[in-house]
Amino acid sequence: MSGRLSAQFAFLNEADKLKQVLRATTLVDASRPENSGEHSWHLALYAMVLADQAGPDVRIDRVIRMLILHDLVEIDVGDVPIHSSNGLAHGSADTAAAEARAADRIFGLLPPDLATEFRALWEEFEAAATPDAVFARALDRVQPVMHNIASGGGTWVTYNVTPEQLESRVGAKIARGAPALWDWVRGQARAFFSG
Amino acid sequence: MSGRLSAQFAFLNEADKLKQVLRATTLVDASRPENSGEHSWHLALYAMVLADQAGPDVRIDRVIRMLILHDLVEIDVGDVPIHSSNGLAHGSADTAAAEARAADRIFGLLPPDLATEFRALWEEFEAAATPDAVFARALDRVQPVMHNIASGGGTWVTYNVTPEQLESRVGAKIARGAPALWDWVRGQARAFFSG
Repeated sequence: MSGRLSAQFAFLNEADKLKQVLRATTLVDASRPENSGEHSWHLALYAMVLADQAGPDVRIDRVIRMLILHDLVEIDVGDVPIHSSNGLAHGSADTAAAEARAADRIFGLLPPDLATEFRALWEEFEAAATPDAVFARALDRVQPVMHNIASGGGTWVTYNVTPEQLESRVGAKIARGAPALWDWVRGQARAFFSG
Repeated sequence: MSGRLSAQFAFLNEADKLKQVLRATTLVDASRPENSGEHSWHLALYAMVLADQAGPDVRIDRVIRMLILHDLVEIDVGDVPIHSSNGLAHGSADTAAAEARAADRIFGLLPPDLATEFRALWEEFEAAATPDAVFARALDRVQPVMHNIASGGGTWVTYNVTPEQLESRVGAKIARGAPALWDWVRGQARAFFSG
């Protein structure tokens, strides 16, 4: 028991570092960059609030768990933004390899049963092949869009993103997991770009 | 649909403000105060990691949802620390009334079905009368203890907290929801105080 709790808290204390990983996206009021810990909380809340946008095969409680875990590898790798090209490229093989090494180290702090369970949830999120993962990833793409609209452009201004780039980099992935949600969000984004 | 999504995002954008509510407790490395958004994420992760410490009546997915929502009223009221006596007193009737008004306003941004569901979960957490709420509240008390140990004393040093005060203010409530967990955490705290 004591050794197990030591391992559980070694992981929980290490996870605390996610609060110091900064993202490209800011808070809604643009006052500062968002960190990946608070971002993960906000996405879990997105899943609770937007559950009615998920298809009938989606189990929201699994989506919430995936979103709680999905960014932990950033403790070692950092955030890899969609719209910038600094450092590791979003979606590249190098990024995937670095994230796999990070998952080995970070989930490896846990007792073996939890390490296996959490690693599998994270890999499911990364593979984007199940209804739960596809919906979780759609929410992960929606939130920065809503923050950019609310904060006057955010990373779209920083990186000169066009509506067409938004559609191709983000829209198709949101539409795959939450088509009606993307219809509405796209309308909000179009109004922003044209206004 | 459009009006519903507008209400859902009005709530989600308002919830973003929880990332700017600062707590008395610091991050594990003592570099800065923790905010209540990232704290809520960390507690949801605590629930996933420490699920084996819960009694057989506890439904962890409800605990996770409660923990995601539990601090939202702090957007209006601020964090009310256990060990300090500035401003509103922890557990006082004034604090409870202010938090109820905050819940009216913040959950009131949601569509009525979600407002009712979330308000009920938050009230269940506050009432501390169900196995899910008692376990959720135990985790909310454990995390600052672990951060104080890791960071060299934290709020215990700031407010001259004794081991006896820790036992009476925090220990009994952790032990109620997670007795074996408190046995272990108390041992860690004792080692800290005597070291």
